[in-house]
Amino acid sequence: MNVTVHGRTGHYRTVTFDSDTNSVRLIEQRLLPHQFKVVAMPDFRATAKAIQEMVVRGAGAIGATAAYGLAQGARAFRGTNLDKFARHVEIVFETLKSARPTAVDPVNAMEAIRQQMRASRTVAERQSLALAGAEEFANDDVNHCEAIGRHGASLIRDGLRVLTHCNAGWLAFVDVGSATAPFYAAQAQGRNFHVFCDETRPRSQGATLTAWELSQQGISHQIIADNAAGHLFQRGEIDLVIVGSDRTLGRTGEVANKIGTYTKAILAKHHRVPFYVAIPLSTIDWNLTAGHEIPIEERAETEVLGAWGVVENPKSKIQSPKSRRQRPKLERRVYIRVANPTSGARNPGFDVTPAELIAGIITPMGIFRPQELWKHRHELGYTKE
Amino acid sequence: MNVTVHGRTGHYRTVTFDSDTNSVRLIEQRLLPHQFKVVAMPDFRATAKAIQEMVVRGAGAIGATAAYGLAQGARAFRGTNLDKFARHVEIVFETLKSARPTAVDPVNAMEAIRQQMRASRTVAERQSLALAGAEEFANDDVNHCEAIGRHGASLIRDGLRVLTHCNAGWLAFVDVGSATAPFYAAQAQGRNFHVFCDETRPRSQGATLTAWELSQQGISHQIIADNAAGHLFQRGEIDLVIVGSDRTLGRTGEVANKIGTYTKAILAKHHRVPFYVAIPLSTIDWNLTAGHEIPIEERAETEVLGAWGVVENPKSKIQSPKSRRQRPKLERRVYIRVANPTSGARNPGFDVTPAELIAGIITPMGIFRPQELWKHRHELGYTKE
Repeated sequence: MNVTVHGRTGHYRTVTFDSDTNSVRLIEQRLLPHQFKVVAMPDFRATAKAIQEMVVRGAGAIGATAAYGLAQGARAFRGTNLDKFARHVEIVFETLKSARPTAVDPVNAMEAIRQQMRASRTVAERQSLALAGAEEFANDDVNHCEAIGRHGASLIRDGLRVLTHCNAGWLAFVDVGSATAPFYAAQAQGRNFHVFCDETRPRSQGATLTAWELSQQGISHQIIADNAAGHLFQRGEIDLVIVGSDRTLGRTGEVANKIGTYTKAILAKHHRVPFYVAIPLSTIDWNLTAGHEIPIEERAETEVLGAWGVVENPKSKIQSPKSRRQRPKLERRVYIRVANPTSGARNPGFDVTPAELIAGIITPMGIFRPQELWKHRHELGYTKE
Repeated sequence: MNVTVHGRTGHYRTVTFDSDTNSVRLIEQRLLPHQFKVVAMPDFRATAKAIQEMVVRGAGAIGATAAYGLAQGARAFRGTNLDKFARHVEIVFETLKSARPTAVDPVNAMEAIRQQMRASRTVAERQSLALAGAEEFANDDVNHCEAIGRHGASLIRDGLRVLTHCNAGWLAFVDVGSATAPFYAAQAQGRNFHVFCDETRPRSQGATLTAWELSQQGISHQIIADNAAGHLFQRGEIDLVIVGSDRTLGRTGEVANKIGTYTKAILAKHHRVPFYVAIPLSTIDWNLTAGHEIPIEERAETEVLGAWGVVENPKSKIQSPKSRRQRPKLERRVYIRVANPTSGARNPGFDVTPAELIAGIITPMGIFRPQELWKHRHELGYTKE
């Protein structure tokens, strides 16, 4: 999507590949929203490290990063011996896989590419096939998000006020995003609307990443404390909710997403406001039969007990610098302890929203009632029968 | 309540008066939870400034501070001329009143004392009456909170897990608190229970003040992100909710309290968990006839866009220093910008919870259904008919 750097607006993807230098280029997401920077990973080990250290995050984005990383590693092989090449690719595969062991997208992406490489019996052709496969994976990710946007934009009438939670934006994918895709599509169709971004404590992805995305794209928005949505619902100031999902159960329509999503779904139901979930097909889990089977990660207490940000110096504003020379030095990003130092915290990272609170699931194939995902499973990529 | 300083546990009130030095002594709440310090206000202007700059906050606490401030100002008068004394007291009254112009407790407290002073015709006796009136106001505040505690403790069975929001603790009163009073009373009765403290963004009073109070008092507790309560309700890990109130409508039973309270009431209702509100009688509004008439303050955007805390230096832990010599220098409390620098925020400070979501109102006179406050109005201090 669009990013304005030093007064110039350009189009960026979260992940791209530079075939001349055989490098993977990533938006350094740990600096956002305070600084925008694209970093180049010169080899597959650096790419794996970038996944591991969360330079890049989000299912689609790390899937494409691993796909490009596999091509990058394959292309770095010098020689024609197919056995040696295969052993080398195996090392690349395992290195990238172990960078984020619980994620399924990197493995799925790389396995598909490895399958495609078998179509040839020469190293050079397999190297070409690897890159073509990675590009295809990245382009598919964008196409799917754009399809989510086309379907979801039909929900966003002129003048609507929409609530979103966390970041299921283009930074979590190669481009466009899932929960944000309807916003970008509706904007392209000339519609005016306003987005409330939940801050999304404890990691504040709404206040940092989603707000940054919407600001760069010129979409009207405001950040609210996670506590404030109830009041806005009560006063009739929210017409629609769209969130993303980390895992959606294809058999029940239950949705696991960032902690706080369930609360927003209950508020929406109570105030008769439709609650939608936008998802790429890769996040549908066709195996589990009940939401309580989804393991809920208990994350570090420090996230709840403090916050990350930059110490503001009122004399050196960091927003909208007009030229490189005028650009002030970025303040150091720091962690502060907010809470009482002798108290601990509970920190569940996700929650599960039952199907009856969800008006619809926005997929690349259309919008479905959550209870009907299973009925439409073949259309939605289920391949087991 | 109890505070442990340098290994020694003592009993403290939020506000006290030292008649020898004619000074008002306050817990400096802006340093909490990172540092505990009692500061002495040498004259009534310093006391007014302490109210204005939020050294002390909370309805009961600022009421008592203003009451002591009035006595302090009256006692500083030198002479026997009753007219000059009356003009002096008028200046003291107006100075303390204007320190927090929207608060009703300081004005009510000071007017009661001024009334009591009229029982005598000498300056010296009126000075004594002023101090006696202030002490009575402070002691009444403590007695009322203890009565709330006695009634509320009946709700806290052994093993219960209770959620609270924001800080309606002893720091907001002279001692004991309102929403926390049942905890302290149940603890005194030997019951074991666990409290979840909502962080309470954007100002984090739950993570800072309530967690500090419970920690000092040795009550089992954990801080949670405001987003996490829904998940805990869903998993059956919350049995009871007790919150405070800034204003309760005596005619309808609606409760205005810190932003986010309404959301917790809806969650409690959805999961059939009882939701109680603990209030002193001074916060009952007998005039308004509907919750939407309560003006909702829109506060500064900076509260939502950032956070206050101390930069943690892992080499110099600030918790539990064992002696003054060992005590490391306190890290500077700073404001950090968390959010995207080019985004704005909405920041409603309060919300209104309707009576049908509330199981009961815990008052010093007993627990009442919110719809029955009006029926019991004479018992609850209504004096207009």
